[in-house]
Amino acid sequence: MGAALALAERGRGRTAPNPNVGCVIVDDAGRVVGRCWTQPGGRPHAEAMALAEAGERARGATAYVTLEPCAHVSTRGPACSDSLIAAGVTRVVAGIEDPDPRTAGSGFARLREAGVAVTAGVRAEDARRSMAGFLTRLALGRPFVTLKLATSLDGCIAMADGTSRWITGAESRAHAHLERSRHEAILVGRGTYEADAPRLDVRLPGLEERSPERVILSTRPHPSGAARLPPSPAGRGKMLLKAAKGEGGWLSIPSPQAIIDLPADHLLVEGGAQTAAAFLRADLVDRLLLYRAPILIGGGKPGIADVGLSDLSAAHGRWRLADARRLGVDRLEVYERASCLPASSPTSAPSAASNSAATRES
Amino acid sequence: MGAALALAERGRGRTAPNPNVGCVIVDDAGRVVGRCWTQPGGRPHAEAMALAEAGERARGATAYVTLEPCAHVSTRGPACSDSLIAAGVTRVVAGIEDPDPRTAGSGFARLREAGVAVTAGVRAEDARRSMAGFLTRLALGRPFVTLKLATSLDGCIAMADGTSRWITGAESRAHAHLERSRHEAILVGRGTYEADAPRLDVRLPGLEERSPERVILSTRPHPSGAARLPPSPAGRGKMLLKAAKGEGGWLSIPSPQAIIDLPADHLLVEGGAQTAAAFLRADLVDRLLLYRAPILIGGGKPGIADVGLSDLSAAHGRWRLADARRLGVDRLEVYERASCLPASSPTSAPSAASNSAATRES
Repeated sequence: MGAALALAERGRGRTAPNPNVGCVIVDDAGRVVGRCWTQPGGRPHAEAMALAEAGERARGATAYVTLEPCAHVSTRGPACSDSLIAAGVTRVVAGIEDPDPRTAGSGFARLREAGVAVTAGVRAEDARRSMAGFLTRLALGRPFVTLKLATSLDGCIAMADGTSRWITGAESRAHAHLERSRHEAILVGRGTYEADAPRLDVRLPGLEERSPERVILSTRPHPSGAARLPPSPAGRGKMLLKAAKGEGGWLSIPSPQAIIDLPADHLLVEGGAQTAAAFLRADLVDRLLLYRAPILIGGGKPGIADVGLSDLSAAHGRWRLADARRLGVDRLEVYERASCLPASSPTSAPSAASNSAATRES
Repeated sequence: MGAALALAERGRGRTAPNPNVGCVIVDDAGRVVGRCWTQPGGRPHAEAMALAEAGERARGATAYVTLEPCAHVSTRGPACSDSLIAAGVTRVVAGIEDPDPRTAGSGFARLREAGVAVTAGVRAEDARRSMAGFLTRLALGRPFVTLKLATSLDGCIAMADGTSRWITGAESRAHAHLERSRHEAILVGRGTYEADAPRLDVRLPGLEERSPERVILSTRPHPSGAARLPPSPAGRGKMLLKAAKGEGGWLSIPSPQAIIDLPADHLLVEGGAQTAAAFLRADLVDRLLLYRAPILIGGGKPGIADVGLSDLSAAHGRWRLADARRLGVDRLEVYERASCLPASSPTSAPSAASNSAATRES
């Protein structure tokens, strides 16, 4: 399952509206005979790719898959549960049940009816984390939002004069580009866009084609600088996310509709301070990526503007540490919502879920 | 040696002007027969206490001691190297050489001349860290300075309205009180003193008597609020560290003389932002204690004011992570100067060292 989860990462940010699944097929001698992940655009599914690789060797094998195999036939392919049965797989070990109402347990049921042994819930939390984009879109009708900050130890994202190159080191910046490659869309506020003219692309060897869609948060329909936005290496266009000027002069939150309309299950918010605050105010941040360099700036620019916090107690209990690691001399901390990620059961999803699911391709 | 280092911590902040040493005596059957640390005020030394506990069992034993046993006789006691020889100890394992010119290797030499096996340099870095206050006083003629910050993930020490109770949790605050108990002196700026009226004492059960001397950084000789400073539980008085108003309206650095005059080898600076910046500007911070709660404040008060940083590259390379741990849901990071702590060899110390050493009691 660990290998399947790792393979699933290869599809992250490329499979919307389908989930990024990983699959490993192991024969009864313990040999890996097939391994793959959901392909860009969402098809073929991970199981279909792995079964094609395994061929006849899938007979009597075990399939490890991060998500319940689908039970619904699409114009783009057969149901994976049927394919696994047809290939002679005798055991399926799965991460989580597919919350898509078209499957939602019926994939497991179909496998069991055909005599396939099914073990579900293996490394379920990791599987949920892996497919957070898909699950958030299904449950809440919007992308999974990650806020990235690169700061000094005293929380500054720039010197007082705006200088921010460089706070974090090469390893952190490379990791941040890897994170970009796992997102369909990346967003900055217009102020940051006009001040820094960031390219917002992926500049890692071999991953240049995985640059995300670039989004500007702006109170004006057409920011003055938008026309100067250079085309991304992948030749993708740009989108403008409308927002109205809110109280106190800060950018107001993007409308839920604007977030729903983004063709993305994973949105990376890269700043600046007012944009970060706008997303936090709206409780639209699911994950924090904190890159911290071992430097002190003192009197620099803070990473997050006023979020409208009423009192300190209201700030507590919202975040839990999910990962911490060193990147060169820097440190990366990943925080997640302290509340669980959207539940995998469709019964616990708000009403938006079924509407959203109904519009999904598969 | 690990046990000796742990014992040495019990004396930290209580033994000035002597070093806080730890000593464990182990007989030839591997039994611990004596263990102690330098007592408050600097005498008796750790070895003398441990030898007294061991008595006759010290004969043929090994003494683990964090610092080279002294070779100089004082009115307050005999030289420890002589005492170890007289007690029949046959082996000494030591952390670092004593940089005090009155010993500086002659303790080891005396032991070896008497036939005692000497192994020096065991866990030397930990020993230097343990005695950083003593070593800094000896090498630089000033206390070892720790700057403490308790912040949110976005580096705020308070909300915009000044509210700071509480950012960090009970475990962090208890640890911060433990750190206070390891310092002879604690300092805040007058602004923080007048705004928060902090007690700056140790409120841990059993450690109430270890509250440090309280110091206010002030541009005025007698801050208006000083008379209101309540007496500390230990009945200690208060001191005023004079400072002149500097450029940009910030408090200027304390004069080197003022720092030298502090009856402390360990000074804990607890804020606020302008005081922290004043110490950083003067390059007088040796260690950072960063307590961070998993909350975001957004638009709050930063922990460090302008430190006069010319460019980002000048900020790099100054700090290295020495420790990181969880305290409840918070995290503590300890950073040290990336440059080595003051060398233990007196030959590499500036001229202040010998002057300072000459005035030391022992």
